[in-house]
Amino acid sequence: MERRLSGKKVAKRIYNEIQKEIEKNNIKPKLVILLIGKDPAAEYYVQNLEKKGSKIGIEVETIILPKTIEQKSLLSKIDELNANNEVNAIMLQKPLPSHLDESEIVMHIKPQKDVDAFHPINMGNLVLDKQGFIPATPAAVLELLSFYEVKTEGKHIVIVGRSDIVGKPLANLLLRKNKTGNATITVCHSRTKDLCFHTKQADILIVAIGKPLFITNDMINENAIVIDVGVNQIEDAEKGYRYVGDVDYENCFEKSEAVTPVPGGVGTITTAMLLKNVIIAYNLQNK
Amino acid sequence: MERRLSGKKVAKRIYNEIQKEIEKNNIKPKLVILLIGKDPAAEYYVQNLEKKGSKIGIEVETIILPKTIEQKSLLSKIDELNANNEVNAIMLQKPLPSHLDESEIVMHIKPQKDVDAFHPINMGNLVLDKQGFIPATPAAVLELLSFYEVKTEGKHIVIVGRSDIVGKPLANLLLRKNKTGNATITVCHSRTKDLCFHTKQADILIVAIGKPLFITNDMINENAIVIDVGVNQIEDAEKGYRYVGDVDYENCFEKSEAVTPVPGGVGTITTAMLLKNVIIAYNLQNK
Repeated sequence: MERRLSGKKVAKRIYNEIQKEIEKNNIKPKLVILLIGKDPAAEYYVQNLEKKGSKIGIEVETIILPKTIEQKSLLSKIDELNANNEVNAIMLQKPLPSHLDESEIVMHIKPQKDVDAFHPINMGNLVLDKQGFIPATPAAVLELLSFYEVKTEGKHIVIVGRSDIVGKPLANLLLRKNKTGNATITVCHSRTKDLCFHTKQADILIVAIGKPLFITNDMINENAIVIDVGVNQIEDAEKGYRYVGDVDYENCFEKSEAVTPVPGGVGTITTAMLLKNVIIAYNLQNK
Repeated sequence: MERRLSGKKVAKRIYNEIQKEIEKNNIKPKLVILLIGKDPAAEYYVQNLEKKGSKIGIEVETIILPKTIEQKSLLSKIDELNANNEVNAIMLQKPLPSHLDESEIVMHIKPQKDVDAFHPINMGNLVLDKQGFIPATPAAVLELLSFYEVKTEGKHIVIVGRSDIVGKPLANLLLRKNKTGNATITVCHSRTKDLCFHTKQADILIVAIGKPLFITNDMINENAIVIDVGVNQIEDAEKGYRYVGDVDYENCFEKSEAVTPVPGGVGTITTAMLLKNVIIAYNLQNK
């Protein structure tokens, strides 16, 4: 195995697979993204999805709604998209303005079009290993492990972070009785005492806490495989700012068996997995 | 804290609370249990629910259906109960005969009446900490911890077993950001290497694997609190058979800080939590 677990090769393979499937079946899947107000980071992500989508044959339409939109108007916009058979997937770009009831909005998106997998029924299906969507970031981690043939069975995987979109779904996925599951799982977080004690035990360490360069080489095992899910913007003397992960990559590189870079690691695969969910949505709706 | 964590006192408190609420609000909650075929263990559990229910004011009706019932007939029976406003809760006694599609049947029960919390949307709500049902056994464990004022925050809780009805929901519940959550969680199972290495680290050890007397004192920490979810029938020279847990209670008693007995531990509270879910169902439907 390489020491640097690049996400680019993994993403490339997924894009190829999606493109082949689209061409073979001559289908036109469509994703609609709801963007509320202006947010540079969200716009960057959305533009990337549009670009990648158009390359492989997925139409990505972005609907920009005013920051002052009322709950009712947003819900009826979603009703319209739910009913539209030409729309296979709906994505709601977060964070939402604070006057909106996020939970009600998420619950309103038809579960079969919920490619972000935020709806409770998709989370339930994930835990119970039933058909449904897997959120793009956890799916990207599984895809990376699978691409580099990292076996998970019987391994002790320590997850740092318990968010609804990364830590918790990952813990449940890695417990599944399948090829990327069967691991012994420990979940640590802000209330964990002696975090080092736990991270040092990890055969595979997955970090998703949103703290720049938090994990250093004194916190990992000699042979650990380190997966960095964090993306943090920090100041940079030359460029003004730059992106780093939750793991201090340079510092951990020598000691670990392998580590994912940021950028160019898990995040790169995440976009691909989101678009793969659009294909899954299309197939669900056109069985 | 007592060394023997009896479930009886905990159950008694819950029954009292339920009974008070029923009397205060002058309500008549009703649970219907579907029992397919004859099974002595299931019948024992059901009779116990009927008896306890009638004492505290919950009507428990058991419908016995033939073992040969067809999928379609069972689904339309469920339709009828879903539509009946006098039925607040539906419980399907498992295991089902092998010719029935369990997953379809579970999905057919109205989530608001699904007091077993087997429906994926209830599991999703549990993981995402939204309103919904918590399966009775994990709920019983939380209630026990809470009754004996066992703090979970920052504690290392090791769960042995990854079932959909105990291990997985418990792991997710103990990660919640609340009074019975905020723990560091490790989930072990049949594929875990060196189980002892993990169980010995536990401040709180929760065992749900269905192996009689499996956990012995060489596998636990000096100050561990041991929660035994197992109920196993074993041969007994005098009585023919008797029930024991997954933990060797006698053997672990001295070394542990506290341990739950079997019978008279978690199982005793489980029945109470199932009936508490009936009240929750009633309130959901009569808001």
